Amino acid sequence: MEDFFTIFSPTNPVFRTYAFWSTVLMVKMLFLGIGTGFQRKLAIFSKKEAVKSQTKAVSNVNEDIERMRRAHMNDMENILIFLPLCFAYILTNPFPWLAMTLIKAFAITRILHTLVYAFAPVPQPTRFILFLVGVFVNAYMGFSIVKAFF
Amino acid sequence: MEDFFTIFSPTNPVFRTYAFWSTVLMVKMLFLGIGTGFQRKLAIFSKKEAVKSQTKAVSNVNEDIERMRRAHMNDMENILIFLPLCFAYILTNPFPWLAMTLIKAFAITRILHTLVYAFAPVPQPTRFILFLVGVFVNAYMGFSIVKAFF
Amino acid sequence: MEDFFTIFSPTNPVFRTYAFWSTVLMVKMLFLGIGTGFQRKLAIFSKKEAVKSQTKAVSNVNEDIERMRRAHMNDMENILIFLPLCFAYILTNPFPWLAMTLIKAFAITRILHTLVYAFAPVPQPTRFILFLVGVFVNAYMGFSIVKAFF
Repeated sequence: MEDFFTIFSPTNPVFRTYAFWSTVLMVKMLFLGIGTGFQRKLAIFSKKEAVKSQTKAVSNVNEDIERMRRAHMNDMENILIFLPLCFAYILTNPFPWLAMTLIKAFAITRILHTLVYAFAPVPQPTRFILFLVGVFVNAYMGFSIVKAFF
Repeated sequence: MEDFFTIFSPTNPVFRTYAFWSTVLMVKMLFLGIGTGFQRKLAIFSKKEAVKSQTKAVSNVNEDIERMRRAHMNDMENILIFLPLCFAYILTNPFPWLAMTLIKAFAITRILHTLVYAFAPVPQPTRFILFLVGVFVNAYMGFSIVKAFF
Repeated sequence: MEDFFTIFSPTNPVFRTYAFWSTVLMVKMLFLGIGTGFQRKLAIFSKKEAVKSQTKAVSNVNEDIERMRRAHMNDMENILIFLPLCFAYILTNPFPWLAMTLIKAFAITRILHTLVYAFAPVPQPTRFILFLVGVFVNAYMGFSIVKAFF
């Protein structure tokens, strides 16, 4: 284990990769949160319209919100664990290319997971596989930390 | 970017502001969690009473729990992202007064948001504006980090 | 407050304890997330079977998922606050044995809480007491940080 100076420095490509992709994932979650809020308002509006015109246009909008909300929830369950786990994993001084590959794999599969969940549904098991990649990265990092520290 | 020593030190007012307000927000979330638990127990009790006396006193209590639970959920979506984002933002060595203003603005609007959501409902868009301040601070920090690191 | 070098080093037993138990708790949450996912699939399967054979075997499975999901949610509310709080608490340079006892108490009660909530239900207030230990540790750390920094 190297010292904090060397590891948490903008000259360390592993830390840069971590900082960049973590920030991207957090901003993504932020927009997903705003999106859920706006869609909810839209749904309330549509509901009023639908009541007026006695149609059933509401259910689809509600389903869309539900999908977005669940995508957000799944993000919280996985990304909020990735952030501290990866921070500790970097402290264990892993091979740089391995660490950077894991970080990118996690970030990209989480972004695709959101797209597939909330915006462009595709048949399963696409989403499930994307979810498993993230879980695998988290689990691998977890076991590496336990191994490195003890 | 300065080094960790200078930044994460009790003599750095930006770090002190971050540590203080982050802790306040986390303690607030903690009590919101306990509050939800206790109100739920209270609701179960009231339900039994209401069943006995055949009244409808239950619905209000349940609505109160729901508001508290949603306030808690909204906190989790926003504060749990603020903590790591602001940590990384401080690393980018921002103007101290700007960083401290953003931290205080975030913390105070989140506290007001909880009050308005869970305890003293006021007409919209009060809560929505308070929510947007927090989102804006998070988004600004996110973009600053991406810009600083790349 | 000592410097980062001394505190966040594998030779500091407090930091080792924090890193180890935090990782264990995060891996636990990870598996709880996967468990919920698999049980949900199982429930959909059972539902189809039950519809075919016109039985009511479904409700128990759904209740199990609900318990697991709520256990996961309770973990998110408490563990995700513990991670940054304890990080800041270690920075305040507490008595090592006190810090290590608090960390272990938190970790062990959270693990028991999950077992009792999701896998082996026991009569209340067992779960409630386990929950309160975690809340107490978090609250104590929060007040210690506020006291240390201001």
